[in-house]
Order: sequence, then C-alpha cells, then structure tokens
Amino acid sequence: MTVRDAAMTGNAMLRDAMQAIAEDIDAAFDILLTVPDDPRRRLFEAMRHAAMGGGKRLRPLLVRATGKLFSLDREQMIRVGLAVECIHVYSLVHDDLPAMDDDDLRHGKPTVHLAFDEATAILAGDGLHDLAFEILADERTHPDPFVRCELLRLMARASGPHGMAGGQMMDIAAETAAFDLSTVTRLQQLKTGAIIGFCVEAAAVMGRLPPEGRTGLHGYARDIGLAFQIADDLLDVEGDAGLAGKALGKDAAAGKQTFVSLLGVEQARRQARMLVDQAKAHLRGYDARADLLRAIADYVIERDR
Amino acid sequence: MTVRDAAMTGNAMLRDAMQAIAEDIDAAFDILLTVPDDPRRRLFEAMRHAAMGGGKRLRPLLVRATGKLFSLDREQMIRVGLAVECIHVYSLVHDDLPAMDDDDLRHGKPTVHLAFDEATAILAGDGLHDLAFEILADERTHPDPFVRCELLRLMARASGPHGMAGGQMMDIAAETAAFDLSTVTRLQQLKTGAIIGFCVEAAAVMGRLPPEGRTGLHGYARDIGLAFQIADDLLDVEGDAGLAGKALGKDAAAGKQTFVSLLGVEQARRQARMLVDQAKAHLRGYDARADLLRAIADYVIERDR
Repeated sequence: MTVRDAAMTGNAMLRDAMQAIAEDIDAAFDILLTVPDDPRRRLFEAMRHAAMGGGKRLRPLLVRATGKLFSLDREQMIRVGLAVECIHVYSLVHDDLPAMDDDDLRHGKPTVHLAFDEATAILAGDGLHDLAFEILADERTHPDPFVRCELLRLMARASGPHGMAGGQMMDIAAETAAFDLSTVTRLQQLKTGAIIGFCVEAAAVMGRLPPEGRTGLHGYARDIGLAFQIADDLLDVEGDAGLAGKALGKDAAAGKQTFVSLLGVEQARRQARMLVDQAKAHLRGYDARADLLRAIADYVIERDR
Repeated sequence: MTVRDAAMTGNAMLRDAMQAIAEDIDAAFDILLTVPDDPRRRLFEAMRHAAMGGGKRLRPLLVRATGKLFSLDREQMIRVGLAVECIHVYSLVHDDLPAMDDDDLRHGKPTVHLAFDEATAILAGDGLHDLAFEILADERTHPDPFVRCELLRLMARASGPHGMAGGQMMDIAAETAAFDLSTVTRLQQLKTGAIIGFCVEAAAVMGRLPPEGRTGLHGYARDIGLAFQIADDLLDVEGDAGLAGKALGKDAAAGKQTFVSLLGVEQARRQARMLVDQAKAHLRGYDARADLLRAIADYVIERDR
C-alpha cells in the first residue's frame, strides 16, 4: 500500500516522506492499540483492523510538512498526526456503517462492521474518537499546556457539529436535496476541509506562529482541501476500485450532487488544477522548507486512489 | 421530570440542588445547541432531542457537590457538568441504537434513531462527543490551561476504550460469556464508574487538591458508582418502566449476568447499602460542605428511576 503510494509519485522528497510517515503512524498505532488480555480484546482488535496498515496518511503528512516550516520536534508532530488519524479513521468506521454509507470495503479490507459486527464498529469508532483527544492532552505531545489546550479546542471544533460531523449531516441531506455549487463547497469544507485545516493550523500553533501570520497557510489548506475533494469526486467517476480499495460510483448511484455532477469532468479537473496552483501561490512567502507542502498540493490531484 | 425527582427525596438540600442543576444544564444545552439555519439543522435538532428535558443530571450534580468542598466558581462547575452530560448523553444515544441495545424509549421519549433515523443518531452522538471536549478546552471552563488539559485528559481516559467504551464492549460480551462477580464489578467500574469518577476528580483538579489528597474522594466515587449500578440492576428487575421512562427487564432477557442475578435481590440490596455507608465513611474528613455528597450517596440507592 505504502510502496504503491510511494512509487506513484515522481517526487523523491514526497515519496520518502510518505513512506516515513506511514511507517511512523503504523508503529505508533501498534503501541497505542496494545490488545489487553480481557473481554475488551475485541474492541482493540477492531480498532487495529480499522487503523493499521491502510490509508494514505495524508493528514499526518500535512502536519509534518507544515511542521518543517517551524522546525518542530519530530516526535511531537507524529503524536499530532496520530491524533488526527484517529479522528479520520473513526469517521470512516462510522461512515461505512449500514445506516450511513453501507460500505463493504475500505483500504482493500472488509469494513469493521463486516469483519467484526455493527456494535463493535460503533464502539471502535467511539474509542478512536476518544484516543485522539487523549493523545493531544498528554504532555508528550507538547510541553506547554496552553498549546495542548489550543490543539484540543481546534480538534474538537474541526471534528464536531460545526465541522466534520456537520458536513456529514449535510452529506446525508445531499441525497434528497438538490444542492448548488456553493452548498456543495460548504459541505466539503466542513466534511473534509475542517480536519485538513486542523493539520496545518496545529503545526502553526506548535510553531508559535501568531494568528495574523496564518493567512497563507489557511488559504493553502482550504484550497488543497477542495482540490482533494474534487479529485475524490473524479475518482468516484473514473477511478479504479481495485486501486482505491473501496467501492466507487456511489455518489451518482445515490443521486448526490458533487463537484463533477455540477461542473462536468473537464471543468472539475480544471478547477482542481487551479486550486492547486492557488494553494502553492499562498506559500510564496516560504522558502524551500515549504517544498513538501508544494509537492503535497500536486499529489492531491495526481493520485490514483 | 425534575419536579418528580425533587419531590421524591426528603432532603431539602438535595431537592434544591437537583432542581437547580437540572435548570442550569437545560439552559446551557439550549445555548450550546442553537439550531443553525442550514442543512445541519437536523443534526442539532437530534442533539437537542437527546440532551434536553430529561435525565437526572446526576453527573453534573456530582461535579457541583464536590465543587462545594473547594468553593469552586459556579459557572465553571456548570461547564464541566455540561461536558460530562454531553458524554453521558452521547453514550446513551449510541447505546440505544438497533445494533447495540435496540431501545425505543429513553427518558419517556422515543430514542433518537426512532425520532429521527439511525444515521442522524450516530452523528448526533458523535457531535455531542466532540462538544464535551470543546467545552472543556474553552478558557471559560478554567483560566489555567494546565487545569483544562488535565480535565481533558481525564475525560478522554474515562470515556474511551480504557473506560466507558471498554466497559460497553465488556457489556456486549456479557451476553454470551458467563461473567463472575469480579468481572461484572470490573465491567461496571469501566462502563459507569469511570465517568462518575471523572465528576469527582474533575472538581478536585479544579480545587487544586493534590493527587495524594484525593484518596477519600476516589473511594467515595468508586463506592457510589457501584451502588448506583446495583440500584440500576434492582430497578431493572423490580422497577416501574413508566417512572424509569425506558424498558426494563432487559438484562435478564438478554441472559446477562448482573449484580442481582449473581447475588440475589436481598444480598444485592444489602451490598448497595453497605457501599453507600462506606462511601460516606470516605468523607469523614470533610465538614458540612460534604453534606450534599452524603445526600447523593443515599439518593443513588433510594431513587425509583
């Protein structure tokens, strides 16, 4: 999985960074999710099934890439990346449930409610959700409690009803309402954009960048978040389900308006490219230390899964 | 609901405190869950349905009763109580789902997945889960970020796979495994005891009580937590479903071992009484400021719902 991701980009720096972060996150999950020898075993096994050995780890990569601007401590960046991945994975486990998207396959493996059962999947999602906050609250994540509190506040905001959970509610509404482009944009800014924004903002907070200096990074995150989602919509229409490791073509089947249904394939592709260029323009004040962020911007629309 | 709870105790201080906290928590939820005028409306309505106008508010009451020992700020105690009630309500919403306990009635109202739908219930639980952490991370909860971080860490720990979520997994396993008394005790210490322990510990943290001074409060929380659960098991066997506002007799139907099935009704009742006496003995070092905690200890086994 990691090897494939790594091979598909011609950018050696990005390739190495993706491989390193995937290994770091899997190693960290392995310790975080040590299986206890008691009746909670099944819960931890389900969390491991969901969290380990899959996924692009794009969000932890974004934390690290932004952290390079501020020469952040590597261990601290991994911990923040691990927390954000806990949130991402929890949201996938709940999203895949029969009552939600009813998906059978995720990262090429059976979804948690199929590999285990629905009750265990609900609890595994809930447990990963808590672990995200437990990681951030720990002093190993950052020695300054003010910084940790700010990370916790931003994470809760990005994940909750004013962020991702709100976006998921809109996503369900999208099956029965005919949303226009601006509503779909707002939906995606909440559903995927809020957590992507967290990754960049978290590194800025740890790097003590004052809020008034974060405008460029906010713009970068907003633009790659939307570009990422347009690329997802394009993959849903044109992608290879085997590579994606999940079912495709589901949006059209559900009658959901997407960037592709609203703009058409060609215009959607142009829009994604424009957003990536704009994202990189937001980084113009940064030197070569932002090159990984630039490479990630290209990657979000060039990926094939 | 509140009026009934208030009327059923002969203790005027407890009655007044229960009524006051119920009003404070409902008022705080009313502001926290302001319904937005956009497609997230349904999510907020579902969270309001779950969170408002029901429940004993025992956990916020415990925060405030413990806070009296340290003359804590009233507003801060309400915010911590609100956060813990978010966690409690989220756990009920998920617990009531068809894949979990499959309950139709909660606090005398249809459960969220019936009043709305399953997907909305999953998201409403997830959203309340995040709001708990967002409340605690806010500086209005406590001016010192070190204290806030400690509250956040304790809450994540109490709620997650090493606490409540782990206990819920054990509770599911209890349907097919024949647990003995010590395993059922451990299950309940995780499933309900961890969050009850948080309430008392949170007030101690805000009151700057050093860890070595918390032994008595820990013992109090552990004992009333178990007594509360034994009383719940007794109500499940002998209670009035109308008063409880939920289905009863479910544990026996599911073939789950409980304190009552393992000890018998009489022995369970004696055990609960003994735990309450022991809980109050843990408070012997405290003066009349602990009287509300003492009254709560009696209440947890004398309640009829």
